[in-house]
Amino acid sequence: MNIVFIGSGRLATNLAKELYKKSYNISQIYSRTIESATLLADIVNAEATDKLIDIRQDAELYIFAVKDSVLPQIIRQLPSNDALWIHTSGSISINVFEHSVKRYGVLYPFQTFSKERSINFNDVPLCYEANNRSDASILNKICASISDRIYELSSEKRQYIHLSGVFACNFVNHMYDIAGEILGEQNIPSDILLPLIDETASKIHSLSPHKAQTGPAVRYDKNIIDKHIMLIEDLRVKSIYTLLSESIYEVNKKEK
Amino acid sequence: MNIVFIGSGRLATNLAKELYKKSYNISQIYSRTIESATLLADIVNAEATDKLIDIRQDAELYIFAVKDSVLPQIIRQLPSNDALWIHTSGSISINVFEHSVKRYGVLYPFQTFSKERSINFNDVPLCYEANNRSDASILNKICASISDRIYELSSEKRQYIHLSGVFACNFVNHMYDIAGEILGEQNIPSDILLPLIDETASKIHSLSPHKAQTGPAVRYDKNIIDKHIMLIEDLRVKSIYTLLSESIYEVNKKEK
Repeated sequence: MNIVFIGSGRLATNLAKELYKKSYNISQIYSRTIESATLLADIVNAEATDKLIDIRQDAELYIFAVKDSVLPQIIRQLPSNDALWIHTSGSISINVFEHSVKRYGVLYPFQTFSKERSINFNDVPLCYEANNRSDASILNKICASISDRIYELSSEKRQYIHLSGVFACNFVNHMYDIAGEILGEQNIPSDILLPLIDETASKIHSLSPHKAQTGPAVRYDKNIIDKHIMLIEDLRVKSIYTLLSESIYEVNKKEK
Repeated sequence: MNIVFIGSGRLATNLAKELYKKSYNISQIYSRTIESATLLADIVNAEATDKLIDIRQDAELYIFAVKDSVLPQIIRQLPSNDALWIHTSGSISINVFEHSVKRYGVLYPFQTFSKERSINFNDVPLCYEANNRSDASILNKICASISDRIYELSSEKRQYIHLSGVFACNFVNHMYDIAGEILGEQNIPSDILLPLIDETASKIHSLSPHKAQTGPAVRYDKNIIDKHIMLIEDLRVKSIYTLLSESIYEVNKKEK
């Protein structure tokens, strides 16, 4: 199968490398800058281009892995053809393709990617959908060739998955960031957090987050909560502390 | 060294088991309920009691591992002696002991404990302090016998560590909980989150959380953010989404 990638960012890089490893033929990488396109193209033995009009028309699969905000306009600029076009976004409906091409779909890897780290794709949940059964089956085969966790899901469901990922990844990472800042201001090295962070994540493999919840908020220890709020100087961080403590207490109170 | 534990909760259980494993002699476990005291006492080959007046006076070390809210009153109820008394709390000052006993200190393990999971203590950062140098050196030795990460830290610094832990553990776990709820309402099994949660935690071993930050908030993708806010029904969760997205954007904007 002959594949063109539109995009060379974190997700494109990780997915292209994985497909290449699994012997898919990646013929071309498009990116807004030729440097970025070339960087990835060299790894997966493909051509590089930074011009939309130079995108090859002979591929069987076009994978759009670009920012959500530019995806619709890039799709509109490409000439239609008979190939399968898919995007990789959590929140954009499959219908973004409907006026541009006949065969289309989505392949959304539910993972956070960075260029510096390589991911074990076997574990990455892949959510796919297509506008027709035969392309759904093509996507199913591609997904199954790189991961053990594959889900055929509608655009409707997919956006809830993306939303849950904002909490479980983006917001979690922001909590790590704030925790590190608090320590940094006291000249305490932030790696003291790592064992706690690791255990908090591993714990929920065997215990539901509900049951795993600990800390001053869950028992509403007003003394500690007030002390903590006084320790925090940044008003933004203060309001996060207050809101999340209230929320933890709310959720727990309901249970009892 | 002869040790009495006051408390038999998650932290007491994990610490007592570890000390027992390292050949410390634990002579007695006190708990409010005899069932809980006996449960732990049986594991570490100690006596159990649920009466404060029955606490043995011949130990060399008394470890108070009880809820912060009851710690001061329990200390006041015990007869003073010449042994070393320490507590294990993140937020309570070492001075909670000053009118009750001559030799006192703190041993705060910076980790989240559950009775169901056993922790590798080797990795657990242990923060200790004492009101005199010779007891600081005793605590240093005890800590070094169970962990490779030991820190002598003042009560002042320790409360910032505890505060950072509320963000890195309690609030993080609450994010996991909300993410699972969002999926549950859509009948999507929440274990689809685990690879993302694991990678988000491992990532920051090699990348700072600042650099690792991804998602719609960091690029302030108003389209996605508004769509997500519309998808969330619970007002409590909506306000968390809004506040954290603004905070991520704020922190990132400052950088640029």
